[in-house]
Amino acid sequence: MEPSDDIAPTRALARFARESRARDLPGPVRHEAKRAVMNWIGCAVGASRHATVEREVAALLPFVGPAQASILGRNERIDILNAALVNGTSSHTFDFDDTHLRTVIHPAGPVASALLALAEFKPCSGHDFLHALAIGIDVECRIGNAVYPSHYDVGWHITGTTGVFGAAAACGRLLELTEEQMVWALGIAATTACGLREMFGSMCKPLHVGWAARSGLTAALLAQRDFTSSEHGIEGRRAFANVLATERDYAQITDELGKRWELARNTYKPFACGIVVHPTIDGCIVLRREHRLLGDDIAGIELLVHPLVLELTGKREPKVGLEGKFSVFHCAAVAIIDGAGGVAQFSDARVLDPKVVALRNVVSAAVDPSLAEDQAVVTIMLRDGRRLTKRVEHAIGSLDHPMTDRDLEHKLHGLCDEVLGSRRSDELIAACWNLDASPNAGDLAKRAVVV
Amino acid sequence: MEPSDDIAPTRALARFARESRARDLPGPVRHEAKRAVMNWIGCAVGASRHATVEREVAALLPFVGPAQASILGRNERIDILNAALVNGTSSHTFDFDDTHLRTVIHPAGPVASALLALAEFKPCSGHDFLHALAIGIDVECRIGNAVYPSHYDVGWHITGTTGVFGAAAACGRLLELTEEQMVWALGIAATTACGLREMFGSMCKPLHVGWAARSGLTAALLAQRDFTSSEHGIEGRRAFANVLATERDYAQITDELGKRWELARNTYKPFACGIVVHPTIDGCIVLRREHRLLGDDIAGIELLVHPLVLELTGKREPKVGLEGKFSVFHCAAVAIIDGAGGVAQFSDARVLDPKVVALRNVVSAAVDPSLAEDQAVVTIMLRDGRRLTKRVEHAIGSLDHPMTDRDLEHKLHGLCDEVLGSRRSDELIAACWNLDASPNAGDLAKRAVVV
Repeated sequence: MEPSDDIAPTRALARFARESRARDLPGPVRHEAKRAVMNWIGCAVGASRHATVEREVAALLPFVGPAQASILGRNERIDILNAALVNGTSSHTFDFDDTHLRTVIHPAGPVASALLALAEFKPCSGHDFLHALAIGIDVECRIGNAVYPSHYDVGWHITGTTGVFGAAAACGRLLELTEEQMVWALGIAATTACGLREMFGSMCKPLHVGWAARSGLTAALLAQRDFTSSEHGIEGRRAFANVLATERDYAQITDELGKRWELARNTYKPFACGIVVHPTIDGCIVLRREHRLLGDDIAGIELLVHPLVLELTGKREPKVGLEGKFSVFHCAAVAIIDGAGGVAQFSDARVLDPKVVALRNVVSAAVDPSLAEDQAVVTIMLRDGRRLTKRVEHAIGSLDHPMTDRDLEHKLHGLCDEVLGSRRSDELIAACWNLDASPNAGDLAKRAVVV
Repeated sequence: MEPSDDIAPTRALARFARESRARDLPGPVRHEAKRAVMNWIGCAVGASRHATVEREVAALLPFVGPAQASILGRNERIDILNAALVNGTSSHTFDFDDTHLRTVIHPAGPVASALLALAEFKPCSGHDFLHALAIGIDVECRIGNAVYPSHYDVGWHITGTTGVFGAAAACGRLLELTEEQMVWALGIAATTACGLREMFGSMCKPLHVGWAARSGLTAALLAQRDFTSSEHGIEGRRAFANVLATERDYAQITDELGKRWELARNTYKPFACGIVVHPTIDGCIVLRREHRLLGDDIAGIELLVHPLVLELTGKREPKVGLEGKFSVFHCAAVAIIDGAGGVAQFSDARVLDPKVVALRNVVSAAVDPSLAEDQAVVTIMLRDGRRLTKRVEHAIGSLDHPMTDRDLEHKLHGLCDEVLGSRRSDELIAACWNLDASPNAGDLAKRAVVV
């Protein structure tokens, strides 16, 4: 790719997505792509029978197209656009997917959901698949970097709004779009970007991820037929970055493009809820383990947290499991009682459990602006008068304290064993690690469905 | 419907969409609904072979679902969601559809495209169809009223962004959603609203209309299965009106809801381009007719126009037909030479015609802030030294100078005769006027397809 100082951001990304060579993808980034795929597919399979997915599938099934692609964790085969929609939705349903910490984007969901559905229809090697995934995530996160935080502050669910670009770029790569077609694909992505933070706590939050996957794939398919858009979908006067953000920095898009990969900054969640509350859960679990706490011992819990925590997860009285994810009070209480923050801790039953409710009612939280997003201070007051304090410097799952490959395998088992059985979960894990050598990336989907 | 002062706008619209009674729709509004349908279906049929539609259909066809609904003007039958998408796109491709002048919304496209596709799948009477259409257009335009002009000024294509609400409400009505489901349908609509003005002049502009139709129909179908959203999709802190506009007036949504119908303020275009340039075209055609002008007589043309005209249609050198619609200079030149502003005047050939180019090059335009949007002053300098001036007080097609029913029939013939033949165009016109008595509104689609 020719470097150029005066190239427009949209065209720069289009050229990168078209001209990047698979062999130039650094080994560690390629490995991170496999980790991202494994984490994503586990989340999608795990949530495949959740009411969010059941209702979405029931609504769409009378209208879907040919049996081209899989619904992960299930047995229906449907057209690739609707498969991208459903798999994207399921992958975010548990709020358990990956996180690009700098922007709070969940990168894999929109991109992988579109790409794997397309790969089932238009075969490609695992090598090319991982490269296209890395491109899509790079496009998505670079656009996110350019408009974060103002874009998020305005009220946009940044995974939905930037995910559509990532899906379009990755699918456009697989479809071998020309540079001009790639510019149009990004333009169509820009004008279909959507997703409001107002929806957090409802089924629409995961819908945003599937929506972005389907819209991005649609954008690439339209552009392949020379369906035109503005050539400045990102930077134009009335385009994405100007309309959906109050500040923007295009250097974040173009600097070191093709050299620095945003995928290298990806992280994975040990807990099935929003990343901002992870330091709190981590601190609670560590204190519980170190002091063998039971909920009954505890007179009160005081949290010091980053400002976003109360903004995003300040619900005092969650009524259903989904709302529990948006209650730092529930998260702390259930982490103490169960010693975990998995899918089970965010069921309706756990949120309404009298013991959890009682402990939740003695949790207080205050903002400490000096704390980073992966930090928290948890103080527990025991009935016997003792005060136990844990300062979490880097929550488990953060860039400085990442989940290991083994941690990710364990997480996939926890998500998939009930759906696929333990043996097929092992095979799915192996298929992810071996994806680079697979002659047909689409085969991965077949290992993640119910037969 | 019980009046209530403290009901949230989203719930007010949901309750209205559910509880409005068909028999309470005033006769003139019901007649306007028929006019809107006739104008919409003519536009969709007329553009059904345009490259925009050809490319969209080619891209989507491998992935569509069962033969449930018609593509207007063509012979394919596809699933209702994709039919809504394609018919919405074709209906706006010629920029020839209806206009709610206060907001520049093109109301029928998103709503009718979704509703007719659904009516082919779930039969309903023409009486109920027209009522649901009026509801959808009311919801769409009231939300538009609440956020216009700031929403549009920010850069949103208001037909796309508000159309999705109208489609959701109309389809939700046909699907007999509960009030709560209707609230969710509007919430899903809010979080999928999209469409950037940056795309004007590309194929994405008409795509926005189809996208809104499909998204709105999807929202209603999801809500029917109890797929949840925020209950405050419009007025919530991080919801539609706060995120996509800088000013908002919710009284525009709730005042006289169910009593005053925005459909009564609908207008129809005599010219196949954006409404802002219609006074200019009207003035040119009137001067040409009154003075029997030929292009050769003319040394120069001076236009005085509303400020939006140069903002939206200021392209000096259009290169393709589509760009000609965004050039007031081309519009004036071709109106003088051809005496028309129909689809033929916005072909690539007309935009590149040397005679048109030569006349375009002597057109100048200046803003006069005292002019209303339906006003313009056209002054023509003849080679013999004479100056001819026409001040257009209300352009043809405006609320104060509406197209008659006969004008609309004539327009439909102009759009449809090449596709359907004159006899079937007559039958389509009759079917529109008789829609109120039809036992099955979906039959209308069958009259507008190629057999």
